[in-house]
Order: sequence, then C-alpha cells, then structure tokens
Amino acid sequence: MNERQRIAMLARVLGADAPGVVRGIGDDAAVLDASGRLVWTIDEQVEGVHFRRDLVCWRDVGWRSFMAAASDVAAMGAEPWCALAALVLPEDLDDASLGALARGQREAAVEARAPIVGGNLSRGPVLSVATTFLGRCTRAIERRGARPGDGVWLAGRVGLAAAGLRALSSGRKGPGIEAAVDAWARPRARFEEGRAMAASATAAVDISDGLAGDIGHLAESSAVRVVLDAHTLLDDEDLVAAASVLGVAALELALYGGEDYAIVATAREVLPGFRRIGEVRDGAGVAVRTDEGERPVAPLGFDHFTGPSKPPAASGS
Amino acid sequence: MNERQRIAMLARVLGADAPGVVRGIGDDAAVLDASGRLVWTIDEQVEGVHFRRDLVCWRDVGWRSFMAAASDVAAMGAEPWCALAALVLPEDLDDASLGALARGQREAAVEARAPIVGGNLSRGPVLSVATTFLGRCTRAIERRGARPGDGVWLAGRVGLAAAGLRALSSGRKGPGIEAAVDAWARPRARFEEGRAMAASATAAVDISDGLAGDIGHLAESSAVRVVLDAHTLLDDEDLVAAASVLGVAALELALYGGEDYAIVATAREVLPGFRRIGEVRDGAGVAVRTDEGERPVAPLGFDHFTGPSKPPAASGS
Repeated sequence: MNERQRIAMLARVLGADAPGVVRGIGDDAAVLDASGRLVWTIDEQVEGVHFRRDLVCWRDVGWRSFMAAASDVAAMGAEPWCALAALVLPEDLDDASLGALARGQREAAVEARAPIVGGNLSRGPVLSVATTFLGRCTRAIERRGARPGDGVWLAGRVGLAAAGLRALSSGRKGPGIEAAVDAWARPRARFEEGRAMAASATAAVDISDGLAGDIGHLAESSAVRVVLDAHTLLDDEDLVAAASVLGVAALELALYGGEDYAIVATAREVLPGFRRIGEVRDGAGVAVRTDEGERPVAPLGFDHFTGPSKPPAASGS
Repeated sequence: MNERQRIAMLARVLGADAPGVVRGIGDDAAVLDASGRLVWTIDEQVEGVHFRRDLVCWRDVGWRSFMAAASDVAAMGAEPWCALAALVLPEDLDDASLGALARGQREAAVEARAPIVGGNLSRGPVLSVATTFLGRCTRAIERRGARPGDGVWLAGRVGLAAAGLRALSSGRKGPGIEAAVDAWARPRARFEEGRAMAASATAAVDISDGLAGDIGHLAESSAVRVVLDAHTLLDDEDLVAAASVLGVAALELALYGGEDYAIVATAREVLPGFRRIGEVRDGAGVAVRTDEGERPVAPLGFDHFTGPSKPPAASGS
C-alpha cells in the first residue's frame, strides 16, 4: 500500500466517535470541543528500546504504545478522552503487520474508552509509535502535594512486567510465568482507580520507570520522605512465583522493574481499589522497611541515557 | 548528562508560561484550562528522512520540527496555544547538540507564541522529534467546503523550500540560492494569515507534501475541481532564480516541491495576506493553466512509502 492507502486503512481500523470530537481522522488536524481542565501527555515506544519484534506480536506493540500514554493521564485522576498517534514505519514492515499494530491500538482505545482521532505517518529506518493523549478532569493530581502522615497507596502491580520481560528475553515459559508475561505485553491504564482517588489523593505518579525511581519523583516534588513496606510489596503471588522461576529477588523486581503502568497515590484515608504500601514522613528520599529494619532505596529506575539502573545489591559487587 | 539532567536542561531552555497552561514541564502530563474549540495535530521529523545532520544545524532541526506541526494548526485558522515534544535521541548525540536543538524549538515556540509545556525523552538508534500542537479557534477551516466559483488563495510560497533542499543536497551556494535555503531551513507557520482567512474561507489545507498533492486532498474532500494559474505560481523572483541556478523547471518545483508549510484556502472574496493562484470549478481533480492551455496535474507529492513522486514530465520518459 502507498501512504494514501495506508491512511485509509488506518482510518477504517481506528475510526470511532467520541463526545466532543467534532472532526477525527482526515484533515490537517483533529477538531475538538473542550470545556474545563485538560491533562495532556506524549509517549513514544521505539523498536529495539521498548520492544523487540521477535518477542512481542504487532498487536501487543500497538496496545502497549497506547496504554503507556494513557497511563500518564490516568495517574493524574483524569477521564480518558482521545489520542493521536504518529507512526514511523521502516520499509520492511508489511501491510499485514501494520494492520495488526493498528488493531492493537484500537483494542486499547476501546478498553480505555478514548479513540485515536488523528495522527501522522512517516517512513524511517526504525519503527516507533508516538502517542499523545488528552484527558479531562476537575482537579489534576500532581506529584507535589503529599504530606507527612499520608499513606502511600498502590493501584496495579509492580515488578511483574519486568519479570515478564525477563522471561520473554530468556525464552522461559510455563507455570509461574504467564501472568508476568501478560503484565508486560498487555498493561492497562488504570482509569477506574484514577477516578476513585481523584477526590482525596494529595499526590500521585504513574509507575512506568520503576517504583523506586518514580516514587522518588513524588517524594522530591512534595519535599517529603516515603517509606515503603516490603511485606506489602511482596504480597503478590504471581510476582513471587515469577521471581522464583527467574532466580531473582522479588523485592528487587518490585522496586526497580519498569513498565508497570501502575499508579501510586498518597492520601490520608483509604483509596478504593488501592492497597497501602507505605507512608509519607518528614524528610527526604525513599526507604524500604523489611524485617531487618529500614534501608534507603536509591532512586533508580530506567534511565534512557545510562540504561537500566542496577539495583544496589547488584551494583555493589 | 543522564536523563534527569537532560530533562532539567530542557525545562530550563523551553520553560515558558502561557494563558490557560496550569502546569507545564515537570509532571506526568501537562495541565491546561480549555474552553471552546480546539485543533490538535501531531507531526514527526526523522533523521535521514526529513533532514540530514550534515546539511542542517541542530537549531534548525528544532525549529523545523516545531513549525511543521504548528503549520497544520495555522492552516485550519486556529490561534496557537501550546505544544509537547517527544525526542528520540541516539547515543552519539552530545549534550551541546541537544541544547542547540532545544534552542531551535524554543525560538520557533517564541515566534509562534506557543510554548512547549511537556514531552518525552527516549533513547533510540535514530534521532526523531515528534511534536504535538494544540490551537484554539471559533471555527476550524477544514479541507471540505470549497465551492465552484471560489478563488484559490495562497499564503506563503511554494517550491522554494524544495529548491533550497536541492541546493543543500548538491552543495550549491551563492546568489539566487540563499532565499531558497532559508525557506527550507526556517519555515514559518502562518498564523497571521490563517487568522485573516478564518472568517471567510470555505476550505483550507496546509501545503507540506507539495502543492499538487495537498490541493488534490482539498479538491477531493470538497468534491470540486481546482484549476491553478501557472503565471501566478511563477510570480516569485526567488523561485525563478533558484530554479535557474539548479537547472530545473520553476513550475515543477511549485507544483511538486514539498515542505513549504504554506496555506492554500478557497474563498469567494479576497483573503488578506494571500494571493490568488487559481479557481474552484465543478468537477474533480487538479489542473494547471499555462499559455498552452489547461493540463491535468497528477496528485503527486511526497509519499512516505513510495518516496518522492516524480512529476509527469520526468516519469513519462
């Protein structure tokens, strides 16, 4: 297919109406009717960095790229609205693969209730998907705002996606691994939980580059100290099972594994759909409390320019 | 610099306030206050496809990537508001080059009066800049809506940017070329002209992939025929001079050259800041009227999957 035919195919696969969308795919830009507060993000997934085509199907590439952007908006407590996607496509990507990628985007858009209403196509040597996502809200929950005495609350799971990626990369399959692989391949932006926290959370952050690093951003922005409880982080049977199969420490996966697309929020009261994983104190930095006591957690995570950070236990040797 | 330091540097270079921007760079997403109609686009510039680092400085890469997105919004008659940028950066891009790229983005944002309020950083094997841009308007001028009897109006210049790229690629310099190189390296989104047309234009399109192709989209969307006047297209001394130096036909450059970021609009009356280049008739397709009469214009332009289309004169041989 040429560019025109590809755009027509994408319009067929992706086209969908949504309230406030006056004009979708098919003009220089999408036209929307807005009133109130908007939350707006962009995320990009690059082949060889965020995924390898031998480890993931095109449908999952489309799904993951959409959800990675949507998750930023969910973590601010906003309602999903709509998205645009810019695809860079190498010459060796055939039309069937492009169709599968678009169907994955569409499935994610249906799940998130936010259609793709436009975008851009370009050729290039490396496949990438840039997704920009708009949400609507009354009040956006920012990273700053956590107060000493707040609880730290988690919606979703941490560490499981990283276990899934390790399993895929090392070719492991079988019992104890399926849930982890699914967590990596099919993450889900947590709009329902984001909505539930919006009234009472003091701060929130999307967990995409690892719990330790992302909660470190929240602690720094809020000028507080966060103490996590190791027992609650390990209260995930699938994580413990996957860690055991992989021969890695479950707590290290939970603290430093990326691509979870979970939400961490701080609040004085219980947040529906969240579980308590720690507390906010006076001070600075992030610590984890185990049976041996409290130890500081380095604010590590996935750094796109220095590569995946090694957890202290590994980098100390 | 690591990712954190690079984000801090980008926030310093790009950070700027704008009306309606509640929260800019520094959280999971930007937060905006909106009311009324929005126009929303995304564009991506990829190294090796849209620019070569041996032919253009990083500052111009930043400028061009911003203006390419902004132009889509200007061509719908909207006011500039704000933008997000997702950068994919290869390991060999040093911090000074990234700084220059960001300064180019900043200069373009100041020129367009629309700050960059957030974005994304990723590493990857090939540099790319994805820019998503929001504008605000009362009425968005779409591609559909042109009526037989309307004039066809041009704001900006066509063919000159393509001449500039040819000059750069072939190493030509000197008299007759400077204006063309500048048109390619420093395009300008035409918000002033877009604003002027918004009240009375019946249709409009951004000219980025070549006049013939883009006006073909307008003709098809509006179900009309467009006849362009060759004399008016050639009424550009810089274009004629550059074509002469390059040894190519100025009319072919005007019809098939890309990356102009001009606006073509249709309207019954005179559009301030535009010049008349043709007329809308009953029928279909695009034609050009020369001293030898009318001839059809193939709806060619830059196709990202079949490469730059050859004009009929060249493909016929």
